[in-house]
Amino acid sequence: MKRIAILTSGGDAPGMNAAVRAVTRKAIFEGMEVYGVNYGFAGLVVGDIKKLDVPDVGDIIQRGGTCLYSARYPEFATEEGQLKGIEQLKKFGIEGLVVIGGDGSYHGALALTKRGFPAIGIPGTIDNDIPGTDFTIGFDTAINTVLDSVDRIRDTATSHVRTFIIEVMGRNAGDIALWAGVAGGADDIIIPEHDFDIESVANKVREGRDRGKKHCLIILAEGVMPGHEFADKLAEYGDFHSRVSVLGHIVRGGSPTARDRVLASKFGSYAVDLLKEGEGGLCVGLVENKMVATDIVKTLENGKHHPDLSLYELNHQISF
Amino acid sequence: MKRIAILTSGGDAPGMNAAVRAVTRKAIFEGMEVYGVNYGFAGLVVGDIKKLDVPDVGDIIQRGGTCLYSARYPEFATEEGQLKGIEQLKKFGIEGLVVIGGDGSYHGALALTKRGFPAIGIPGTIDNDIPGTDFTIGFDTAINTVLDSVDRIRDTATSHVRTFIIEVMGRNAGDIALWAGVAGGADDIIIPEHDFDIESVANKVREGRDRGKKHCLIILAEGVMPGHEFADKLAEYGDFHSRVSVLGHIVRGGSPTARDRVLASKFGSYAVDLLKEGEGGLCVGLVENKMVATDIVKTLENGKHHPDLSLYELNHQISF
Amino acid sequence: MKRIAILTSGGDAPGMNAAVRAVTRKAIFEGMEVYGVNYGFAGLVVGDIKKLDVPDVGDIIQRGGTCLYSARYPEFATEEGQLKGIEQLKKFGIEGLVVIGGDGSYHGALALTKRGFPAIGIPGTIDNDIPGTDFTIGFDTAINTVLDSVDRIRDTATSHVRTFIIEVMGRNAGDIALWAGVAGGADDIIIPEHDFDIESVANKVREGRDRGKKHCLIILAEGVMPGHEFADKLAEYGDFHSRVSVLGHIVRGGSPTARDRVLASKFGSYAVDLLKEGEGGLCVGLVENKMVATDIVKTLENGKHHPDLSLYELNHQISF
Amino acid sequence: MKRIAILTSGGDAPGMNAAVRAVTRKAIFEGMEVYGVNYGFAGLVVGDIKKLDVPDVGDIIQRGGTCLYSARYPEFATEEGQLKGIEQLKKFGIEGLVVIGGDGSYHGALALTKRGFPAIGIPGTIDNDIPGTDFTIGFDTAINTVLDSVDRIRDTATSHVRTFIIEVMGRNAGDIALWAGVAGGADDIIIPEHDFDIESVANKVREGRDRGKKHCLIILAEGVMPGHEFADKLAEYGDFHSRVSVLGHIVRGGSPTARDRVLASKFGSYAVDLLKEGEGGLCVGLVENKMVATDIVKTLENGKHHPDLSLYELNHQISF
Repeated sequence: MKRIAILTSGGDAPGMNAAVRAVTRKAIFEGMEVYGVNYGFAGLVVGDIKKLDVPDVGDIIQRGGTCLYSARYPEFATEEGQLKGIEQLKKFGIEGLVVIGGDGSYHGALALTKRGFPAIGIPGTIDNDIPGTDFTIGFDTAINTVLDSVDRIRDTATSHVRTFIIEVMGRNAGDIALWAGVAGGADDIIIPEHDFDIESVANKVREGRDRGKKHCLIILAEGVMPGHEFADKLAEYGDFHSRVSVLGHIVRGGSPTARDRVLASKFGSYAVDLLKEGEGGLCVGLVENKMVATDIVKTLENGKHHPDLSLYELNHQISF
Repeated sequence: MKRIAILTSGGDAPGMNAAVRAVTRKAIFEGMEVYGVNYGFAGLVVGDIKKLDVPDVGDIIQRGGTCLYSARYPEFATEEGQLKGIEQLKKFGIEGLVVIGGDGSYHGALALTKRGFPAIGIPGTIDNDIPGTDFTIGFDTAINTVLDSVDRIRDTATSHVRTFIIEVMGRNAGDIALWAGVAGGADDIIIPEHDFDIESVANKVREGRDRGKKHCLIILAEGVMPGHEFADKLAEYGDFHSRVSVLGHIVRGGSPTARDRVLASKFGSYAVDLLKEGEGGLCVGLVENKMVATDIVKTLENGKHHPDLSLYELNHQISF
Repeated sequence: MKRIAILTSGGDAPGMNAAVRAVTRKAIFEGMEVYGVNYGFAGLVVGDIKKLDVPDVGDIIQRGGTCLYSARYPEFATEEGQLKGIEQLKKFGIEGLVVIGGDGSYHGALALTKRGFPAIGIPGTIDNDIPGTDFTIGFDTAINTVLDSVDRIRDTATSHVRTFIIEVMGRNAGDIALWAGVAGGADDIIIPEHDFDIESVANKVREGRDRGKKHCLIILAEGVMPGHEFADKLAEYGDFHSRVSVLGHIVRGGSPTARDRVLASKFGSYAVDLLKEGEGGLCVGLVENKMVATDIVKTLENGKHHPDLSLYELNHQISF
Repeated sequence: MKRIAILTSGGDAPGMNAAVRAVTRKAIFEGMEVYGVNYGFAGLVVGDIKKLDVPDVGDIIQRGGTCLYSARYPEFATEEGQLKGIEQLKKFGIEGLVVIGGDGSYHGALALTKRGFPAIGIPGTIDNDIPGTDFTIGFDTAINTVLDSVDRIRDTATSHVRTFIIEVMGRNAGDIALWAGVAGGADDIIIPEHDFDIESVANKVREGRDRGKKHCLIILAEGVMPGHEFADKLAEYGDFHSRVSVLGHIVRGGSPTARDRVLASKFGSYAVDLLKEGEGGLCVGLVENKMVATDIVKTLENGKHHPDLSLYELNHQISF
């Protein structure tokens, strides 16, 4: 393979730039040429494609967002979209594609591979909700950003003896809530993957208060319900001086952590290794601290992502 | 004066602990004894008061929130509340009081002074909305915390070519929005102290987009209207792919900046100087980079706080 | 087991407090009593021991350093020291001990176990140089702190077209240098576990410069040689406008990252599980992303720690 | 004036990019054209000059370093250098110049003005050692970066009951040490502008230790002596378990604080106002919280910079 391309798709995640840099440099190291596709699959079908050389990916490893821009583009699910995309790639003499993004992006990579154009998926999303890997690019940065806010809110909660309900991102997954909750010393963590009983939550808050605990922090995954709704339900069991804080888009950007930059570099390098060997239809992952590549079809069909529920139990045992 | 007390009142602000430390240490340096009142005026009337020695305020200069806790206590506006407060202070042999907080706290300090108990106010609030000073304790930290979020959101806005409306705290004042807006390179800043025209805002967004600008950031002071309301109004003039981010309580806590710690230390030390000279009914401030003490009555009556509107004009001229 | 104790030993590491909290809370959750030993083994032999209840470990999960203080105490290698330590533990009715620290601490835990007093080791050091685990408590925070400095230095290096040699901690291990180097986009990484050729380094710097690269960053593990010595050697091959920056103790403190807090919480909880089952002489670890407990003797004798040298190769392929 | 240029000179400082942006945008707002000179005066004499449009200074307000690069160039003190510089400026049709940097840069601006080419100086250096202004661009960021390290070192100092001597930048000025020292709660601050007695320092350390104080932090300005020399002197009076930490170049880079971005924006805008009115040979400053412009000759000749020594006295009174 002489020429490959790379695109980022779906919501931006810190570390995407580090992955773009790694794919580009590794491919050049291996003697290939590299092209960057702007705006994900939307840019692919219109041929918004440019050559990437060594300096083009210099000084980006530390930056949040994606220098290739991103977009959601459901039209790529159609045959027309996919054929247009392949046409554009062939026009540039490109023989393989690396796609960084979430499960939507994986479907795109799979569709291309099925049509004879090898594509490799790299898991990039703050939500950590992609099967086939223990960790996605951006997740480590996101939980540290959430944690920074949780620590700040703790100052205010303690100063005023208040309960805070902190709603965090994660779509349908509770990973961000779980990790940030354990790390933040949250009194309770509410996630979609585990049922909860609002009365028990209220009792726990009350017991803490009765014991003289100043602050009470509840981390709520957005996939469960909005923060204000939760606060209303909680208020039915007593006045806990609750405040709601919704950590929305501030969690998406920012300079990536060391972990995310290293993980993105490993993924990017490995994806190039696979393309070089003519592989396609695979997604890379970190499973049990090792690089793996798995079939996208099987990964998406069988491999539902599960958060580490041992953290849920752990928090119950040490946070009171 | 042999024995003084200190309390924090109103919303917590980063740097309050540095002020508590400075008051305590300076008073001890001057040969006085110091007492801390927990939970502001609410704790004062019930005598929740403890002696503070040198180690009690050690290792707090870097912490957000207030180690004396805070509370809103409107009942202190009554004669009964004030007399109870003075009774408690006298029970502990306390002869002077330092009050750190916002304008509500100043009223409390003034009421005590009028009843013959000298009290000095220190401006502590993230909102910067206190007359008699150019800067309050906590403001510098708050604008840097907002700025950190604005920088993160910029990554996402750029990656997705979106407009973000970022609602920031400040009660009725636009200071946080103004400073964070100029520092964040906001396309527009919407504050209560300056009128705005939603159509002009929309035009500016459109012009930037037409010129190829990727991100558009609008900083909105909460005192104007909620972020979602603003987004709805803006949407009447076109689809700018707007997202709303409400930076609520995350802006209140956190380790204070260098400025806030230094300012708090100066204020605390100066307040003790004033009490030592038998002064009361004054509030300290930083005006034109110099320590000043002004009469609380005059300050509250005449000295309405004004944000630095030259920043508004400046932003108009350099942010496009 | 009804009563256990905990101590921290060796150099402090961010996350030690989170581990102390987890051990304490988990043991209380399991119905045990918990005691904290101040100043590591030095405090143990003199009986500087206090009871820890739930609030005693509140509000510490986010703090750097160790609330139990630490000290190096080589005298604990003697029979006399160990017998004194056991005497003190028995005086308090303590039946098991958790030791958080590096390999020196493990030897202490092992010695106690051999004398019939069960002790469990938790790996806590920023250097990541403990066998039996892929990651130690404090390592993740340390590499992010180094990275923050590397990113700052990059600004100056780029602005002035300079080469920076950044010496980082790690004792005899290259882990910090490796991870921070890959994450920081270092041009070269010099570690004790891999030989290097100063002329090749010089050539790489020169090639980058000739290609128009503005900055050049070389991360040097302190275990190789001091930064200034390296700079002198490099200067023999050309004037690269080199500057040396020694990141010393600033890397040891600071609020722990999410990873370090979660890892510390898991380790602490697991150590209590082991003690509860009457186990001793074990150290806990995270191997291939799973909690493990291994025999301290075997771990120390056979299990030399190895850094992830695939990162070294990776950096060579993507950082130029 | 139709066309102006801008350059950055001397050591880089966070906020220089914000100033470049402000000069560029304000000049365009006023209908002028703007050119950027790379590498300071060194780039000026060789004509390394490029046109700057609105997007060229987009997305730089948050970046450390200087996008125009910088260099020290003593040759600009010669007639030959100055005439070459003016020749280059005229070749591009440039009629006025903004110079951002330290006192060396001011001399360059003054020399050009004396030869009939109007130039305005903007104070940009982390050291705060420029007369004519209370604060320079970069100083606020630098003291916060130092403070972050001081806070980290405090964790380790407390955990191990140690004394740390922290050497900070500042050339011959003590401003960074003073501000970071007060903000960091330093036990002592050693600066060139105030004499000190090593025995008194030792006594203060000993008294703190005797009183049970865990950590002891001494902030030392590099202009006084190297940290290790100070540690050696201190060791003559007792073993205080001292460690030395030299915060070198990590303090120069990094994303600028809100203050530095706002100050840089004000300075940049004001410099354009002055050039537009045909003024030259002036330097802008913030004095008593107001924008001022003063004659460079008088400023350099009479206006020696003085740090705020009231902070020295303040620290003595509250930090023990």
